[in-house]
Amino acid sequence: MEPADVYRVPGFLANGVAAGIKADGGRDLSLLFSICPATAAGVFTRNCFQAAPVLIDRERIATGIAQAVIANSGCANAATGEAGYADALAVSRAAAAALGIADDLLLVASTGVIGHRLPVDKIEAGVPGLVAGLNAGGIPAAEAGIMTTDRFPKMAIRKTVIGKREVTLCGIAKGAGMIEPNMATMLAFIMTDAQISREALDRLFRRAVDRSFNAVTVDGCMSTNDTALILANGVAGNPPLDRGSRYLGRFGEALSSLLGELARGLVRDGEGATKVIEITVEEARTTRDARRIAYAVANSNLVKTAFFGGDPNWGRIVSAAGSVGIELPVDRVRLLFEDVELFSAGTGRQELRAELAAIMQQQEIRVRLKLGMGQRSWTVCASDLSFEYVKINAHYHT
Amino acid sequence: MEPADVYRVPGFLANGVAAGIKADGGRDLSLLFSICPATAAGVFTRNCFQAAPVLIDRERIATGIAQAVIANSGCANAATGEAGYADALAVSRAAAAALGIADDLLLVASTGVIGHRLPVDKIEAGVPGLVAGLNAGGIPAAEAGIMTTDRFPKMAIRKTVIGKREVTLCGIAKGAGMIEPNMATMLAFIMTDAQISREALDRLFRRAVDRSFNAVTVDGCMSTNDTALILANGVAGNPPLDRGSRYLGRFGEALSSLLGELARGLVRDGEGATKVIEITVEEARTTRDARRIAYAVANSNLVKTAFFGGDPNWGRIVSAAGSVGIELPVDRVRLLFEDVELFSAGTGRQELRAELAAIMQQQEIRVRLKLGMGQRSWTVCASDLSFEYVKINAHYHT
Repeated sequence: MEPADVYRVPGFLANGVAAGIKADGGRDLSLLFSICPATAAGVFTRNCFQAAPVLIDRERIATGIAQAVIANSGCANAATGEAGYADALAVSRAAAAALGIADDLLLVASTGVIGHRLPVDKIEAGVPGLVAGLNAGGIPAAEAGIMTTDRFPKMAIRKTVIGKREVTLCGIAKGAGMIEPNMATMLAFIMTDAQISREALDRLFRRAVDRSFNAVTVDGCMSTNDTALILANGVAGNPPLDRGSRYLGRFGEALSSLLGELARGLVRDGEGATKVIEITVEEARTTRDARRIAYAVANSNLVKTAFFGGDPNWGRIVSAAGSVGIELPVDRVRLLFEDVELFSAGTGRQELRAELAAIMQQQEIRVRLKLGMGQRSWTVCASDLSFEYVKINAHYHT
Repeated sequence: MEPADVYRVPGFLANGVAAGIKADGGRDLSLLFSICPATAAGVFTRNCFQAAPVLIDRERIATGIAQAVIANSGCANAATGEAGYADALAVSRAAAAALGIADDLLLVASTGVIGHRLPVDKIEAGVPGLVAGLNAGGIPAAEAGIMTTDRFPKMAIRKTVIGKREVTLCGIAKGAGMIEPNMATMLAFIMTDAQISREALDRLFRRAVDRSFNAVTVDGCMSTNDTALILANGVAGNPPLDRGSRYLGRFGEALSSLLGELARGLVRDGEGATKVIEITVEEARTTRDARRIAYAVANSNLVKTAFFGGDPNWGRIVSAAGSVGIELPVDRVRLLFEDVELFSAGTGRQELRAELAAIMQQQEIRVRLKLGMGQRSWTVCASDLSFEYVKINAHYHT
C-alpha cells in the first residue's frame, strides 16, 4: 500500500474531524472540496427505503455539477422521515455557508445506525473546524471520518496521461459489507482533475460501478444509504473528454481499475471475512444469466460456509447454479477451482482431494463455472461466511 | 406428539432397516408399500442438476399410479451421471422383484452425500429383510431410515370423514435444511387411504406443497434431490373424490394441515435453528409480490442473525423488503412483531424496547409486514442463523 501522502488530487482539499457523533470519539465528519465547481455523477442504492441524504443527492446530482461532499459516520439518518430530510438539509446549509458556496453544490452522505436522528447541533459545531482544516493532504483524514466497523481504510489512486497532461483519479470508500450490522453502508467518493463532459462521466462511472461495487457481495444485502459519487474538476487542463474522444477508453480503464481496487477492499474487509472468492461464470448465453448465476453462487450460505471451512464442496456450487431457474446443459457444465477441473459431464472428481486442499488454503480463490451455452461472462467477488459474521451481526444491538 | 403407534394408514405397510450405507450403522433403507396400486402424485426440485432417483420418479409418476417407495439415506446418488441412473434402476428392480410387483410401480428416493456412487450391493442385500419386515406399524421405522442429521423425526397424521367413511392421511419427512451439509435433502412421503382421482390429487397436492414445503426456508438453498410424493390407495372406500366433489375441500384442508405440520418441523429442526420466524407479507398487490418480499426477508442473513441475537432490528427487515425491486409506498408500509407495531410512516419507534425484548425471547416469533398496496399475502417460515449453522456447514467435509 502507498504511503498516505500519495493520496492527493490537484484542485481538491479534504479533511476529517471528530464531531462527537461516534461514541468512541473517533473521526466522524468528513469534507471533500473542489476549488471550483466540478462535473459530477452519482450511483445510488435501488432500495425503496432510501435515507434522507440519498434523496437529497439524487435531486442535486441531476444538475451534473457539485463542488463538495460532506459525510458523517455514526448515524445513517435513515428511516427518519421528514425530520431526517430537514436535518440533512440543515447540515448541507451549514457546510455551504462555511465554504461560501451555493447550497445545492453540496452533496451529503451518512452512514451508521438506522432510525436515529442526526445530531445536527454537533455537526454544526464541528463544521468550522472541518472547513478550517481543509488541505491537499487531507484525503486519509476524510477516509477515517467515514469508516465505521471497517478494519482498514480503502483508498486508491491512479494516474494516467491524456493529451500530454497528467490526470489523477483518487477514491475513498467504506464498507465492511453491502450493509452492516444495522449500519447503512457502502460509500465511495471519487475525485479526479480530469476535464470531462457530464454525459461521458455519467456513462463511464455507471459502467465502472456496475463492474466493481455492483459485482461484490458480503451478505447479499442492499443498504438504504449506498452511495457512489464522482467529482471531476477539470484542473488537469486535458483536452476535454467527451463521447468519441480518443482518450475516453484510457480514462475509463483507469476509473474501472480504481473502483475495482476499492471494491475488492470492501470484500477483503467484509464482516468476518477470512477469504475472498472470485466467482466467474463463463460461456453464458447472456450477461444477465451469467450475473444471476454468479450471484446465486456468491450468496449461497452453503457455498460461503464451505469456503470458510476449507472444503472444496463442488456439489454446493453446482447446486446453487442449478437453482436459479435458468435451464443449464447439465452434461456440458464444468467447474474449475483455479486451473483444476473438478466437475464435468454431470459428475464430480473425488480423486483431486490433495490438489484442492492446497487451493483451499489460499486467501483468494478463483472459481470458474463454464456453462457451455454461449460467450458471456460475469465475475462476482464474495467473502466467506464465518463465525465472526454471525457474531458481529447477532451481537450488535440496536 | 402422538405415540409412535398412531402412525398407521389402512392398506399401507412400512419398514426401515440398517443396510450398512450410513457409517454409524443406523437405519438407512426404508420401504412404504400399498396393498394395491395407488393413485400417485409428486413434486420435485426445480434444480437443473437433478439426482438420478428424481429423474426416474418424474418419468414414472407420469402414469399417476404407484404402489411402493424405496428410499435410502447416507448417499444422495446425485451428480453420479449415467452410472448413478443405472444404480437407481437396479435398486428399484431388486425391490420390485422382492415385492412381486411391476418395476414401474416403484418410486425411489435417496438422500445423503452428493457425488458418491450408491452401494447397490449393500442395498440389494438389505432388500429381503426390508420386505420381510413390512408391517402396518412400520411407519416410524421408515422415518428413521430416511433421517440424516435430523434431530427429531417428522411424522404427522390427520383423520377426516368423507361420505361417512373415515379417511386417514399420514406423512413422514426428513429435512434439517432445504439442503444440508453436502447432503441432498428434503424428502416427504404421504400415504392416504382416500379414494381420489389422479387429477384432483395432483392439484391438491401441488397446492398444499406450495403453501407448506415451498413456504419454509432454512438457508434459501434448493437441493438436487427434493422430493415430495403422495400415494392414495382408496382402501377407505369413500365416495370417490374428484373435481367438483363436495368433500374435496375437506380433504384438501386435511392435506394442507398435514403438510404444514411436517414443513414446520423442517424449520424447527433446521441446521442450527434456535428460533422459528413466521414472516407474513400482507396487503401486497399480487401473491407473487408478497412471496418475493417474504422470501427476501426470510433469507436475509442480517435478519436471521438479528433474530439469533435477540435483536428486534426492524431496520434490517424493512431494508430487505425494499431491496427486491418492487416499488413500495414507503410512507404506508407498517411492520409488526406479534401485535406490536414498530415501524410506520417511514420511521421506527425506538421507545418500544421493553415490549420487544420480551417478544424476542419467544421460540416462535410472528412478523407481519403490511405493504398498504393491495389484498394479497404470503407467509414464509424461517429459521434463524446461528454459530451452529456455520459450524455444521463449515466443518462437514466432503
